[in-house]
Amino acid sequence: MHNETSTGCASRIDEIRQAIDAAGHPALLMVDTISSLGSIDYRHDEWGVDVTVGGSQKGLLLPPGLSFNAVSEKAREASKTATLPHSYWAWDEMIGANENGLFPYTPATNLLYGLVEAVKLLHEEGLDNVFARHARHAAATRSAVEAWGLEVLCNNPHHYSGSLTAVLMPEGHSADAFRQTVLENYNMSLGNGLSRLADRVFRIGHLGDFNDLMLMGTLSGVEMGLKRAGVPYRAGGAQAAIDVLVGNGASASLAAE
Amino acid sequence: MHNETSTGCASRIDEIRQAIDAAGHPALLMVDTISSLGSIDYRHDEWGVDVTVGGSQKGLLLPPGLSFNAVSEKAREASKTATLPHSYWAWDEMIGANENGLFPYTPATNLLYGLVEAVKLLHEEGLDNVFARHARHAAATRSAVEAWGLEVLCNNPHHYSGSLTAVLMPEGHSADAFRQTVLENYNMSLGNGLSRLADRVFRIGHLGDFNDLMLMGTLSGVEMGLKRAGVPYRAGGAQAAIDVLVGNGASASLAAE
Amino acid sequence: MHNETSTGCASRIDEIRQAIDAAGHPALLMVDTISSLGSIDYRHDEWGVDVTVGGSQKGLLLPPGLSFNAVSEKAREASKTATLPHSYWAWDEMIGANENGLFPYTPATNLLYGLVEAVKLLHEEGLDNVFARHARHAAATRSAVEAWGLEVLCNNPHHYSGSLTAVLMPEGHSADAFRQTVLENYNMSLGNGLSRLADRVFRIGHLGDFNDLMLMGTLSGVEMGLKRAGVPYRAGGAQAAIDVLVGNGASASLAAE
Amino acid sequence: MHNETSTGCASRIDEIRQAIDAAGHPALLMVDTISSLGSIDYRHDEWGVDVTVGGSQKGLLLPPGLSFNAVSEKAREASKTATLPHSYWAWDEMIGANENGLFPYTPATNLLYGLVEAVKLLHEEGLDNVFARHARHAAATRSAVEAWGLEVLCNNPHHYSGSLTAVLMPEGHSADAFRQTVLENYNMSLGNGLSRLADRVFRIGHLGDFNDLMLMGTLSGVEMGLKRAGVPYRAGGAQAAIDVLVGNGASASLAAE
Repeated sequence: MHNETSTGCASRIDEIRQAIDAAGHPALLMVDTISSLGSIDYRHDEWGVDVTVGGSQKGLLLPPGLSFNAVSEKAREASKTATLPHSYWAWDEMIGANENGLFPYTPATNLLYGLVEAVKLLHEEGLDNVFARHARHAAATRSAVEAWGLEVLCNNPHHYSGSLTAVLMPEGHSADAFRQTVLENYNMSLGNGLSRLADRVFRIGHLGDFNDLMLMGTLSGVEMGLKRAGVPYRAGGAQAAIDVLVGNGASASLAAE
Repeated sequence: MHNETSTGCASRIDEIRQAIDAAGHPALLMVDTISSLGSIDYRHDEWGVDVTVGGSQKGLLLPPGLSFNAVSEKAREASKTATLPHSYWAWDEMIGANENGLFPYTPATNLLYGLVEAVKLLHEEGLDNVFARHARHAAATRSAVEAWGLEVLCNNPHHYSGSLTAVLMPEGHSADAFRQTVLENYNMSLGNGLSRLADRVFRIGHLGDFNDLMLMGTLSGVEMGLKRAGVPYRAGGAQAAIDVLVGNGASASLAAE
Repeated sequence: MHNETSTGCASRIDEIRQAIDAAGHPALLMVDTISSLGSIDYRHDEWGVDVTVGGSQKGLLLPPGLSFNAVSEKAREASKTATLPHSYWAWDEMIGANENGLFPYTPATNLLYGLVEAVKLLHEEGLDNVFARHARHAAATRSAVEAWGLEVLCNNPHHYSGSLTAVLMPEGHSADAFRQTVLENYNMSLGNGLSRLADRVFRIGHLGDFNDLMLMGTLSGVEMGLKRAGVPYRAGGAQAAIDVLVGNGASASLAAE
Repeated sequence: MHNETSTGCASRIDEIRQAIDAAGHPALLMVDTISSLGSIDYRHDEWGVDVTVGGSQKGLLLPPGLSFNAVSEKAREASKTATLPHSYWAWDEMIGANENGLFPYTPATNLLYGLVEAVKLLHEEGLDNVFARHARHAAATRSAVEAWGLEVLCNNPHHYSGSLTAVLMPEGHSADAFRQTVLENYNMSLGNGLSRLADRVFRIGHLGDFNDLMLMGTLSGVEMGLKRAGVPYRAGGAQAAIDVLVGNGASASLAAE
């Protein structure tokens, strides 16, 4: 998992590869980039990944409906003799047809047209700028969470995610009740906590076709929701985010006086 | 002008009517509701207006392209003998055809279909709720302007507009240069000052299909723009708006701790 | 009227101009091109027209909502002193603002964006090709009408219209009842007869974004409607149209055997 | 294959089931309904099918991107111990999640919204009417092919397909060259022949959101294409189709005179 959707932590795939190699372990390295592809820098070949799985519905600016596999020679070889049950498509027919510019089955044509436009948009902005934009939004979001007196689930800066931020609810407060309050009052749907984190965290997404004002609308909605839901917090999170987005903190605006 | 687009002041049409009647003056009362219809309470018949002019492109949630006239008997009579040059349509052919459910000329059909949906949306929310929503957004916007240490052009609470707020720039600062900075950095187009107010005010629109989070995105963009454009201001406007939107000021959030 | 919508006759504007000039008459020449602009060749300047009126909703491929005036110097002069009542916009404010690239009032912005695309499409095909396409469709339509044993209202080839064809109903048969049958059975809306022609003619439009197969669907719908409505006709109209569209008549297809 | 896309023959699934049962054979019956679901009557349970596969992109009026499996208990049991390689999704995770109203993976949400509307449209028309409409269009298409002097590939009326008709090209004529001529001249894309039928047949689709006038446009395009491509044919196919669609042949229209 390049970006762990449920926790808002990004794994350092390059380091994992190095660890596997250092241990001389033959394991294949498979990476899920669903919530990072197009939002956080990722390098299938350079990092020596064997299988990369991506999707259309987040960083690629499209509705859900397309999934992508990047597969190493080593993985293709392994798949030929694999006996484990699998629940997704087999690669060979797809790769065979693709080599002639075809699909073995009718593809989701409309989404493919959309993909062409989406990739064009990403390149117009420049991938480095896209990644930097998401990183800025993530930093502004963390500063808001901190100002609210809440806790970012991912506690290792080395693993901060550019595409989403998971926030821990204070003890004794339901994340899902809070999410419901936000949905009803502000028509904004926050991510829920998964499995063990169910009802304990809410997730703020800041990926894809997203700009500074959308982020401020989002963070303002979270802050207003905290108030309405009676969750203990300190006002000022949205303001803290503004300070990060606009440059260098409150001092800056004072300087303007 | 029910809502004065260039100044962000709303006229008290009912009081104007009373003044005309008190003076026993025969003047016809014509009201432009382009930027108020569907955003601020307005009553053509009850207030005794002779000619009301409205448009599709603001409170009615549509693109520009439709205009509406409400005309009193008195105005229709007067128009029969009027000799002043006029630059808009004549009423009689339109009224005559409309009485049979027709138009004298091909109307903007697609916009009429949209109008049916727009009116449905407004009634689903309830006109009183729509007006209250705009008034809340206007109050939150004024509190932001005050917190920034800037001045709302409309200085009479009796005339505050629910659909837009015009803000005076500090002496020696160009409103248009500021608007340009906001457009380039945040892809947000603020209204310009008109005629004598050219380059001296910028206008924040908060009407039509608009919610709390859109307003916070808007006000955050203004605050970040003030910083980037080097306009003297105090940080905290967006935060002040949150306090108004969520209920009762900063004390409220403290109470939650 | 360049193209007479109610009769399907196109006027020879150039000849009318010549006649006016030959008579040395000072009359202004005003031409309505609503149903011909972009479908039939038209030349405001070259033909010495004083006022040309056009609309967006036919040959320009757009929904209704835009109207265009081309005005000669002579007409502008005349308008300054004109005392006749008028029911449309005054020119001066529009022309004055346009000279600075502006509009005196909020224009139908969305339709203007559409207009840019529509004009691009027309030029991509080439205006001469667009006019030729409409002329071909008109010729195919007339051959269908003739094959049905019905009569084209416009009985002077010199005035045939490229954008629509009006067809006379046989005595004792209601054009409107026929149009209703076609609408109910084939979801196709044919034009009705206007004023004195009410209920006596139906009109087949073949202008705008229209191709050979759309025309064949249209003519087939008319032929099937004639059958269903019990209107006396001879089968074979659609087939006759195919022969015209594909080149040179029935003999051609025999030659293929 | 309920409807054989490459040949335009529809299999009698009920008879196949009966044959399997009569032989007391344990084989599972799997049916591909991609090109028939929503166009030709089909009954998974009543006909005792074990696995039915359908898609969104034909009779269901949607773009490609959704596929549906209907699975019998017997098939689910068999799949638990199946060792054959498979290239599609596994059922269990999907069925398990679906039972709780969920999906095990992010579904193509937008297409699911479209599906709700598509099913509503089909029920508004009534499935029996939908199937009858396609059968009428197929009959009209076959009568056109016959009139052209060409041959319908499916030579057994018991197997005629309601959703598409495959047509054999005369010896020595390329179906693909003909299809190219139609595409270039009429912007209409006809289906190609598959595998052994490559370049020998072209396929006329008449399924999904399709009405009488669309069919006539389609058949007229084929007839004009035959002429342009120099394929030997007899004129009159489109006319023959009209006679079928409108009721009872040429005699009928004479009767109207």
